[in-house]
Amino acid sequence: MADLTALRDAMRDFTDARDWTQFHDPKSLILALVGEVGELAELFQWLSAEGAREAATRDPLRTRAGEELADVLLYLVRLADVLGVDLYEAATAKLASADARFDVDAVRGRAPEKA
Amino acid sequence: MADLTALRDAMRDFTDARDWTQFHDPKSLILALVGEVGELAELFQWLSAEGAREAATRDPLRTRAGEELADVLLYLVRLADVLGVDLYEAATAKLASADARFDVDAVRGRAPEKA
Amino acid sequence: MADLTALRDAMRDFTDARDWTQFHDPKSLILALVGEVGELAELFQWLSAEGAREAATRDPLRTRAGEELADVLLYLVRLADVLGVDLYEAATAKLASADARFDVDAVRGRAPEKA
Amino acid sequence: MADLTALRDAMRDFTDARDWTQFHDPKSLILALVGEVGELAELFQWLSAEGAREAATRDPLRTRAGEELADVLLYLVRLADVLGVDLYEAATAKLASADARFDVDAVRGRAPEKA
Repeated sequence: MADLTALRDAMRDFTDARDWTQFHDPKSLILALVGEVGELAELFQWLSAEGAREAATRDPLRTRAGEELADVLLYLVRLADVLGVDLYEAATAKLASADARFDVDAVRGRAPEKA
Repeated sequence: MADLTALRDAMRDFTDARDWTQFHDPKSLILALVGEVGELAELFQWLSAEGAREAATRDPLRTRAGEELADVLLYLVRLADVLGVDLYEAATAKLASADARFDVDAVRGRAPEKA
Repeated sequence: MADLTALRDAMRDFTDARDWTQFHDPKSLILALVGEVGELAELFQWLSAEGAREAATRDPLRTRAGEELADVLLYLVRLADVLGVDLYEAATAKLASADARFDVDAVRGRAPEKA
Repeated sequence: MADLTALRDAMRDFTDARDWTQFHDPKSLILALVGEVGELAELFQWLSAEGAREAATRDPLRTRAGEELADVLLYLVRLADVLGVDLYEAATAKLASADARFDVDAVRGRAPEKA
């Protein structure tokens, strides 16, 4: 079961055991998240759009990408915990809102405009 | 139940219904993730370390932060799906690895060095 | 004359005049930089590799991209100033180092590996 | 003389000599920029706001921060070149616009609100 609440609790235990809560203010955690997103970006930067998808089906990229995605998720879960946000509930609410906002027939096959 | 697999499926349905899969190559999704991380960073940039935590307990920051965290998670889940990565499994494996790597007694109260 | 030193001084004056130096600690400025990089990423996220180059030759993308590149540069220059780094000298030294490191004949036409 | 035009030309020569122009589409360069911003963020993530400024006055952080700032600038200059943007002109125009928009007396000592 891919339970985000269990992951939050595991990150909390990991942090508490090391007395690292003192370092986990929101700005520091966002910078840590940025660092991991940067490592993810570096894995793909020089690949073509098609090559990126293809290369990710094999190692070494497959494993490396999984590790960086994992790091991003772990810091994201930790940040949400520190901010008192129920991450899963926030995500389902946001997706429901996007579902209502982007009418299927109106936007089919067209990339959403950035405001 | 905060089930990441259900969220992945919901994002997949949302994307398929709009025929947006064509836009969701890995590099494009990473850029979308970067955009959302940027919006998250902007919410906190000028706050102090302590002020950030405090301000996030109240609106408007509480709601805004939740929305941006949600956007980051949704793109992360979608990216993992496109890359064929089991995000939850990758995160639990990474956390287990960090747990073994950072000996509790050796690192207690000290921020991990960046290599 | 595209003088980075003049830009640094102009940003310093802009900041001092508003008494905003108090907000410009390194972590806050990095978050501000991340915010602007995020806005840049959003402009290009759903375009194809070829489409991105082409769309940037015309408005509205041409002007919008210029504005976001400008914001990134302004925060970067400000961050370097706060950190006491001579940004131009650091960049020329880094480029000279890359020039020595990536032998022209050895790497021609091949994307550099990410370590 | 800290001439951004000379840096642009040097980056262009560096890239052409290696036949790397083929990799320098806008999206790829933005991902490379994100990678460098991530490395910069990692250097500062666990420091306090005051500690960050202080630590940057000494090595190893002083040198490391300079290197990462340099990398960000080099990719930014390259991206502007690829997009046909006069980066220096864009930055001076943006700063002039900010100078007009944020009235000195109205905003003195108050962090700008994020829209």
